[in-house]
Amino acid sequence: MPKDNVIKMEHGAGGEPMQALIRDLILNNIISRSAGLVGLDDLDDGATINITGILENKNSNVNSNDSGNCNNPGEIVITTDSHVITPAFFPDSNIGRLAVSGTVNDLAVMGAEPLALTCAMIVPEGFELSSFEKIVRSMSEAAEEVDVPIITGDTKTVERNGLDSIIINTTGIGIANEVIRDCGLCTGDKIILTGTIGDHGISLLAHREGFELTTDLVSDVAPLWNMLKDVVQIRTIEGKPAISAMKDPTRGGLAGTLNEMAQKSGTGISIEQKDLPIKEAVSSACEMLGIDPLEVANEGKAVICVKAENAEEVLSIIREHEYGKDAAIIGEATEENLGKVLMRTPIGSMRYVDPPTGDLIPRIC
Amino acid sequence: MPKDNVIKMEHGAGGEPMQALIRDLILNNIISRSAGLVGLDDLDDGATINITGILENKNSNVNSNDSGNCNNPGEIVITTDSHVITPAFFPDSNIGRLAVSGTVNDLAVMGAEPLALTCAMIVPEGFELSSFEKIVRSMSEAAEEVDVPIITGDTKTVERNGLDSIIINTTGIGIANEVIRDCGLCTGDKIILTGTIGDHGISLLAHREGFELTTDLVSDVAPLWNMLKDVVQIRTIEGKPAISAMKDPTRGGLAGTLNEMAQKSGTGISIEQKDLPIKEAVSSACEMLGIDPLEVANEGKAVICVKAENAEEVLSIIREHEYGKDAAIIGEATEENLGKVLMRTPIGSMRYVDPPTGDLIPRIC
Ligand SMILES: Nc1ncnc2c1ncn2[C@@H]1O[C@H](COP(=O)(O)OP(=O)(O)OP(=O)(O)O)[C@@H](O)[C@H]1O
Ligand SMILES: Nc1ncnc2c1ncn2[C@@H]1O[C@H](COP(=O)(O)OP(=O)(O)OP(=O)(O)O)[C@@H](O)[C@H]1O
Ligand SMILES: [Mg+2]
Ligand SMILES: [Mg+2]
Ligand SMILES: [Mg+2]
Ligand SMILES: [Mg+2]
Ligand SMILES: [Mg+2]
Ligand SMILES: [Mg+2]
Repeated sequence: MPKDNVIKMEHGAGGEPMQALIRDLILNNIISRSAGLVGLDDLDDGATINITGILENKNSNVNSNDSGNCNNPGEIVITTDSHVITPAFFPDSNIGRLAVSGTVNDLAVMGAEPLALTCAMIVPEGFELSSFEKIVRSMSEAAEEVDVPIITGDTKTVERNGLDSIIINTTGIGIANEVIRDCGLCTGDKIILTGTIGDHGISLLAHREGFELTTDLVSDVAPLWNMLKDVVQIRTIEGKPAISAMKDPTRGGLAGTLNEMAQKSGTGISIEQKDLPIKEAVSSACEMLGIDPLEVANEGKAVICVKAENAEEVLSIIREHEYGKDAAIIGEATEENLGKVLMRTPIGSMRYVDPPTGDLIPRIC
Repeated sequence: MPKDNVIKMEHGAGGEPMQALIRDLILNNIISRSAGLVGLDDLDDGATINITGILENKNSNVNSNDSGNCNNPGEIVITTDSHVITPAFFPDSNIGRLAVSGTVNDLAVMGAEPLALTCAMIVPEGFELSSFEKIVRSMSEAAEEVDVPIITGDTKTVERNGLDSIIINTTGIGIANEVIRDCGLCTGDKIILTGTIGDHGISLLAHREGFELTTDLVSDVAPLWNMLKDVVQIRTIEGKPAISAMKDPTRGGLAGTLNEMAQKSGTGISIEQKDLPIKEAVSSACEMLGIDPLEVANEGKAVICVKAENAEEVLSIIREHEYGKDAAIIGEATEENLGKVLMRTPIGSMRYVDPPTGDLIPRIC
């Protein structure tokens, strides 16, 4: 990466330019990058802290024969996201619900129950206090939904000409009995998508640009732990975890998420276009605008990779939940096309689903 | 607080307007605010998660008679800060070192060893990649100093006209054998300040406004855990913790911090102006500009409240450390003037040190 270069919008878009930035300028320059099983190098939805090791260290003065009952307390999982979405209020929701949901979901797709959230707000001068209050209330409501407290935060202000809208960072701490990675996909595993794609990005775009959609479309932003907690504990007949990998298809959309899972897991992925849940309003808007709905951000969806024998069970549990009623099995992991994603179109031809590259729709997360 | 009102710069300045905002619009609107001993309502430097309780819950299937050796594993402490300082590079340091130090210090003043940090960056379009890389390196260096890994993060980009400089949020997770609060001050306790006041704010101001100081002055930004870890374990003769309260005098400066400690602890505080460590360059700049150095932000200092019997011991340990060589006992907690801070001037008169109100110097943290 040439040193005379500058940050471009696509460095924050979730595609290849962002991955290159993180790899070349962040990973390469941070010396110490791990505190447990999943560290910075794994580039997963969050990371883990080996709390068992720390506690055993602290308890090393007690009889080590007795330490058995301290075993397997689970892994502490931690994740962070900043949200710069503009405008702060969008169809059916706002940045507060987004900030809480995004962080809860990164914990949830790692198999972690959320224990606590932080709330760091940066607010431009002139921002309405009534809007500020609504946003805080939405944060509280979203957090209540999954029963997680907001325990600490920070508030900074910036001049009107230094920042154009409120920014919120949330960090989440959770605990997982067994951490679910984004790299655990195996040949033959089924891939479940928990609902329709593109709702968040397209509704935001339509709202912001002021164009009419064929039907009402709102953001899917939602905290998914209540839905996902019902499936993370499911086991195969041999007692292994039924879920082999999980990820939330946010920036970069489903295309970005599936490609990352295939690359990291060293499998291929094949999906069926006809099985992809998508709303008519989203597909027609995407067609009109020349946008691939597979590359559009979602904020209330998960990609669940599951052992074939458990796929129907997981699907039916997910479908019972309000955030999962449109869930579908969209494909499976294959032995061929390692690291790549193939999609069978309705007319039967196959096409590659490439990882997204450009900056599709800025500032929707 | 009238609802037709808007955010002003002083809502982020650490004084009374910010405290009112947090109380009225944040605390009042968040339903669930605690996960352990120290929650949001305590408005301390961070909060705690009762990990012991969670682990015992998870281990409840084992014989409860054996659970003794899981006891007292310490408290998990968590804290978050966003940094909006501009310019991002300032005398001797930059926003990267500041972001890591600020969060390490909020953990440290709660008596917590840092276990892991998160790094969430928001970067404006056009920001130099070489500056970005320098900042990441500074984060890594500061983190290495106190041996804490950076394990997860987030990168967002914003248009050039939407944000004027890089913003970094860091969240820290730590573990404390015994959590140190900011409300534990008792009558008779001595108050130690670990070094000179105002270096950060005044050096930043001079650099930004381009005025000359009498001598070279640089920011004090530094991660204090290596210095503070040597004193948090000290005990009184009766075996109680020697340190009764601790806080870092950041926004709002020493005046803000001491007032908060006095109010929360329900004691008075009296300090001696002649014992306050302050550099000549800072006091003369403050005099010239009509700024009270007690209200200026510090980023590498701690206020340590300690049992009188241990004060000299703690002071000498702190002074051995490079970040504590100018440390001094500046006063003590009193039975009179509850919730207030009094300062004896060099000519022997007493004056109240009021909590700061306005927005002294914007965007220096
Ligand atoms: N500034 C940064 N410092 C350290 N790690 C980073 C930084 N930015 C991103 N990462 C790491 O890169 C990986 C990808 O981050 P990304 O933000 O895309 O994940 P995500 O939060 O799951 O997605 P989204 O932000 O779209 O919700 C994560 O492992 C994250 O920890
Ligand atoms: N937006 C917010 N949401 C929730 N709690 C907040 C928010 N802003 C501040 N707080 C809480 O208010 C208290 C004071 O915050 P403050 O940021 O002043 O503390 P600090 O980090 O020690 O100081 P500084 O930010 O100057 O380093 C803390 O307990 C913090 O958790
Ligand atoms: Mg994610
Ligand atoms: Mg995320
Ligand atoms: Mg803070
Ligand atoms: Mg603090
Ligand atoms: Mg702080
Ligand atoms: Mg992220």
